[in-house]
Amino acid sequence: MRIGILNATGYSGGELVRYLAGHPEFQIVGATARSQAGRRLGELFPWLRAAGRPAYAELRLTPQLEGSPDLVVSCLPHGPSAEQLAPFLDAGVRCVDVSADFRLEASVYARAHGVDHAAPQWIDAAVYGLTELRRDAISDTQLVANPGCHAITALYALAPAARAGLLDGHAVVDSKTGVSGAGRTAKAEYGFSELNDNAGPYRIASHYQCPEIAAQLSGLAGAPIEVTFVPVLVPMTRGILVTAYAKLRGGVTAAQLDQAYRETYADEPFVHTADEPPRTKWTAGGNHCFVHWVLDEPAHTLVAAAASDNLGKGAAGSAVQNANVMAGFDETAGLGIPPTYP
Amino acid sequence: MRIGILNATGYSGGELVRYLAGHPEFQIVGATARSQAGRRLGELFPWLRAAGRPAYAELRLTPQLEGSPDLVVSCLPHGPSAEQLAPFLDAGVRCVDVSADFRLEASVYARAHGVDHAAPQWIDAAVYGLTELRRDAISDTQLVANPGCHAITALYALAPAARAGLLDGHAVVDSKTGVSGAGRTAKAEYGFSELNDNAGPYRIASHYQCPEIAAQLSGLAGAPIEVTFVPVLVPMTRGILVTAYAKLRGGVTAAQLDQAYRETYADEPFVHTADEPPRTKWTAGGNHCFVHWVLDEPAHTLVAAAASDNLGKGAAGSAVQNANVMAGFDETAGLGIPPTYP
Amino acid sequence: MRIGILNATGYSGGELVRYLAGHPEFQIVGATARSQAGRRLGELFPWLRAAGRPAYAELRLTPQLEGSPDLVVSCLPHGPSAEQLAPFLDAGVRCVDVSADFRLEASVYARAHGVDHAAPQWIDAAVYGLTELRRDAISDTQLVANPGCHAITALYALAPAARAGLLDGHAVVDSKTGVSGAGRTAKAEYGFSELNDNAGPYRIASHYQCPEIAAQLSGLAGAPIEVTFVPVLVPMTRGILVTAYAKLRGGVTAAQLDQAYRETYADEPFVHTADEPPRTKWTAGGNHCFVHWVLDEPAHTLVAAAASDNLGKGAAGSAVQNANVMAGFDETAGLGIPPTYP
Amino acid sequence: MRIGILNATGYSGGELVRYLAGHPEFQIVGATARSQAGRRLGELFPWLRAAGRPAYAELRLTPQLEGSPDLVVSCLPHGPSAEQLAPFLDAGVRCVDVSADFRLEASVYARAHGVDHAAPQWIDAAVYGLTELRRDAISDTQLVANPGCHAITALYALAPAARAGLLDGHAVVDSKTGVSGAGRTAKAEYGFSELNDNAGPYRIASHYQCPEIAAQLSGLAGAPIEVTFVPVLVPMTRGILVTAYAKLRGGVTAAQLDQAYRETYADEPFVHTADEPPRTKWTAGGNHCFVHWVLDEPAHTLVAAAASDNLGKGAAGSAVQNANVMAGFDETAGLGIPPTYP
Repeated sequence: MRIGILNATGYSGGELVRYLAGHPEFQIVGATARSQAGRRLGELFPWLRAAGRPAYAELRLTPQLEGSPDLVVSCLPHGPSAEQLAPFLDAGVRCVDVSADFRLEASVYARAHGVDHAAPQWIDAAVYGLTELRRDAISDTQLVANPGCHAITALYALAPAARAGLLDGHAVVDSKTGVSGAGRTAKAEYGFSELNDNAGPYRIASHYQCPEIAAQLSGLAGAPIEVTFVPVLVPMTRGILVTAYAKLRGGVTAAQLDQAYRETYADEPFVHTADEPPRTKWTAGGNHCFVHWVLDEPAHTLVAAAASDNLGKGAAGSAVQNANVMAGFDETAGLGIPPTYP
Repeated sequence: MRIGILNATGYSGGELVRYLAGHPEFQIVGATARSQAGRRLGELFPWLRAAGRPAYAELRLTPQLEGSPDLVVSCLPHGPSAEQLAPFLDAGVRCVDVSADFRLEASVYARAHGVDHAAPQWIDAAVYGLTELRRDAISDTQLVANPGCHAITALYALAPAARAGLLDGHAVVDSKTGVSGAGRTAKAEYGFSELNDNAGPYRIASHYQCPEIAAQLSGLAGAPIEVTFVPVLVPMTRGILVTAYAKLRGGVTAAQLDQAYRETYADEPFVHTADEPPRTKWTAGGNHCFVHWVLDEPAHTLVAAAASDNLGKGAAGSAVQNANVMAGFDETAGLGIPPTYP
Repeated sequence: MRIGILNATGYSGGELVRYLAGHPEFQIVGATARSQAGRRLGELFPWLRAAGRPAYAELRLTPQLEGSPDLVVSCLPHGPSAEQLAPFLDAGVRCVDVSADFRLEASVYARAHGVDHAAPQWIDAAVYGLTELRRDAISDTQLVANPGCHAITALYALAPAARAGLLDGHAVVDSKTGVSGAGRTAKAEYGFSELNDNAGPYRIASHYQCPEIAAQLSGLAGAPIEVTFVPVLVPMTRGILVTAYAKLRGGVTAAQLDQAYRETYADEPFVHTADEPPRTKWTAGGNHCFVHWVLDEPAHTLVAAAASDNLGKGAAGSAVQNANVMAGFDETAGLGIPPTYP
Repeated sequence: MRIGILNATGYSGGELVRYLAGHPEFQIVGATARSQAGRRLGELFPWLRAAGRPAYAELRLTPQLEGSPDLVVSCLPHGPSAEQLAPFLDAGVRCVDVSADFRLEASVYARAHGVDHAAPQWIDAAVYGLTELRRDAISDTQLVANPGCHAITALYALAPAARAGLLDGHAVVDSKTGVSGAGRTAKAEYGFSELNDNAGPYRIASHYQCPEIAAQLSGLAGAPIEVTFVPVLVPMTRGILVTAYAKLRGGVTAAQLDQAYRETYADEPFVHTADEPPRTKWTAGGNHCFVHWVLDEPAHTLVAAAASDNLGKGAAGSAVQNANVMAGFDETAGLGIPPTYP
């Protein structure tokens, strides 16, 4: 199947190429760039010369997507993403949007991003791509809104308790993220010397993925869940580590939690329960998430921890997984790359 | 004044020597080691040869503390610390215990550490060394229990709200820590390859500093505060970053929070309010803490963030500050080393 | 084909499992451990649960190698490696030794390692596994001595000039290494806090891989090449970066160098010439090496730079590549994992 | 004495403020910025609020230097540095130039930097600020050209052998540098994700500090020394680690080397001989250099290793040391800050 990539030059785009380089079904027929248009992919990602698909290393980046793709994945920032996906959607092409453009209702979007949506007519058509919990809807839809990296990890951490109706209306999500989530941009504040050996929170209780988490969690719970969300930048390249805290409804027991988590992720190839606290390195370079939970009895509070690779399950890996479901391929196709350790 | 150090060979001990090397009043007269006894300090800390106090580089480590010190600081692990401090306490020598030995009531201690206390008769005499909030008691006591690195940072984050009676009975403390807090021990799990580019929580809701935080916070609030505490190991050498979350009592306003925080830390030389989220690097190598707070209005939840150097304000810096208060010296003596940046 | 691993618990062993988990021909039938015997592989390498071969995650580590393997790879340290390989060699089993045991003549070995060789009768049978330059000998031998991580990277950097007779008798090899080369051992000196943000040389002109480089380089040149070798530990997990310096014979031109390098590595799937200085990250997690060279004309000195992953091309990747050649499989089988970037 | 800083906003400028904040004689009376003019120093360097000199945190950055300084230190990039220093030099003010502007003869400068010099009339007046070897000239001059960070570390590594006439005409300098040497600029290539866990050489045999090293080394030797210089970027914030290699003249012995090194650095407060290979962390945050040397006998080659902090001895520390000598102050004034470890 012919696949096209909008903005293949950033870290999510590069990771998408990395997964697709070993995909048995999808063939990259076109990839766009903005300032880097005209260059070949192998110039931007030297490792690609070492990835066994020389044709992809030679792929010339174009300003407009070429190759008549059957499916388009957008790794553009939100705003430009909706704008450039709209013509493909109008033409009936299936799309996966890695940006934040189709994850929220229009009014919430405007508040979260401070701008109006570029293609509001497509918002309702989008299915939120939390694959494990939405397989049927994803296989039927033309447009998947791929979850944010913080959001997907937070949702894996809390979804089992939310679905089972165990939460009490408010959850705290403290999400430690590696720096690659900030993208491949030239900003002094993302310089190595600024971030190495340094940790700090940002956009406290005002990050745009907060309403995304709240909306999805409320949907899973069938009742409103308020979310306090704090992202924290820590000095590592890849990885999201969520520690989430939620008061439980009266009488909820550890056994109920255990059952909810184990049932939700039984037999899942990419989301795993862990008997010990997970570490981000378990997932580096792969499309996986590990989830662990503890009942803090004196405070009757659930502590859930989840680790994933922000570029894998948090972006490009999920995009491929969702594309596989949309296309009717084996859901794990192309996603077998083992994480690196150490 | 003559000062002696129990166990000068670890990171806290080394940092203590670093501060004392420039202290105008304290003179190190003896320092002990366990496996390293017989070696000179300069062999363990090569930078000490460059610190302008050659005599300290030549100081020979002994198994028993020599030099008849007027004040003893213990950087031993808990257990051995109480054991080795007891004879000095019995002899009337003033002591600062950097270990966890004198921070908890005997019964809580036994539960938290799984062993009985080695010198329970001295627990009641100890003053918890949160200097800025206990100056009078510290200046009068013979024994200071220096706070834990997680605990002191969490307490600076939440103390103003607790003291002002704004908290509602439960607080979540999510504490990101650098690796030096684990000490200078040979464990495979603390190896560079294991921890680099890797983050993960540990001892979820079961860390021994949890009852320490809860007891002190409750004391400040004059009412019981339940604490859910999760420490998270992140790949940096120094630094503690606490993000704390607490439901507020009905009707509490942002203005009340602002007033509580600004009043508590006005004119403090080592604890600073910050108008933006703090970063650990602001404190690296110095005895400082930066505190920032936000009211998440929809959830009526306080988010407080605090950053400090776990070896500075979180250990050796506080120890020197407390020793200064005990000895009647200028509280800032020896503590003027500016943090490094970047 | 049935493969067995001696000492699968370290970083080289783990990386070997990572490559073999996706190998179409080799099946791991047994794996040993020393202190960790009795545990399952998935306990030591949590990512393995995410690698699509659950059977390997469940593989029980045994003290003695079981499963009647057709080929054995040893990831033991030198000394024990020769000792435990000897019975398999005596029984006619093909072996790849990742340790340093079969890389040097017996007399040089004794000098380099300070102990006598444990199975000297097998030294002469060993072929040095610099695959690209020894394919025929490797396919015929029963025993491959897999090159050291510094050595293989240095040899890729200098082999083309050596083979072409362009060197003048002395080469300097300055080899920057990540920490995983030191293994998964509990040593205080390899702790995160010791090595993070810190660089330093070790075993200056006295490292055991110096005679290995010198012997191989001299063999390629057909004339003695003296080598000054300095390994430098830098704060990264994976990666070897060699910068090598060699006076050239009179009259050697840049064009001759270009020809030598391009011819040597033309069409190689794992060793690549680069037009810009290579970076270790290009190779992280894969079995690749990138080589770049410059003629410093005023000093008539070759500067050659090579980057590889010490656990990939520098250890487990080469081992699989050599095993493929020995077994008559496609040389690239199992080695298609793309490096991670960033 | 009144001191002014040209461009106080970068890492060298910030480190200069850090040293001067504790200096007993110099008082900062003015500091300039380019894009950041109008802001206060404490906004750019939050730690400064914690450095015990609140006045400096409040210092307003201006586009032109104010305060009628008696001595000016320039932390501008080369080019603008000579341009902005010239009026002060013309007015008889003493100047220390941390940039590369006054280190080379005009013709070499034009070749190394690809542009003509902005104030060539002042080149001959400049003294190269290798303090330990030029004290008399520095105390008499109006203009000090502060050495480059690679160059000063390479020169400490090789100067003793050069001065003693032991070198044979060619030296290799392999210099591993932390990222802060690249400054506080917004470039994608210096982003955390690009550089973390990654090492690579740059400007192989074409860096502008190569002629600087060669000229100074030749001057010390009294004979031409050719230099092959390769800088290598490694993933750490601070630190320069030079490993230098030089063929020795016939008959030179290890004892001669020992004598040369020990004599050169005997009693120096900031340059120290080390009996083991130095590590950059020994110097982090201080104005120090550690030097170690080995004779590789089979190759009759000197291996010299030196470690320093690129922002300390490699920039701001040396600048203060040179300013102390120029002003007739104690050479160590303000430079007593102990390095951080770990």
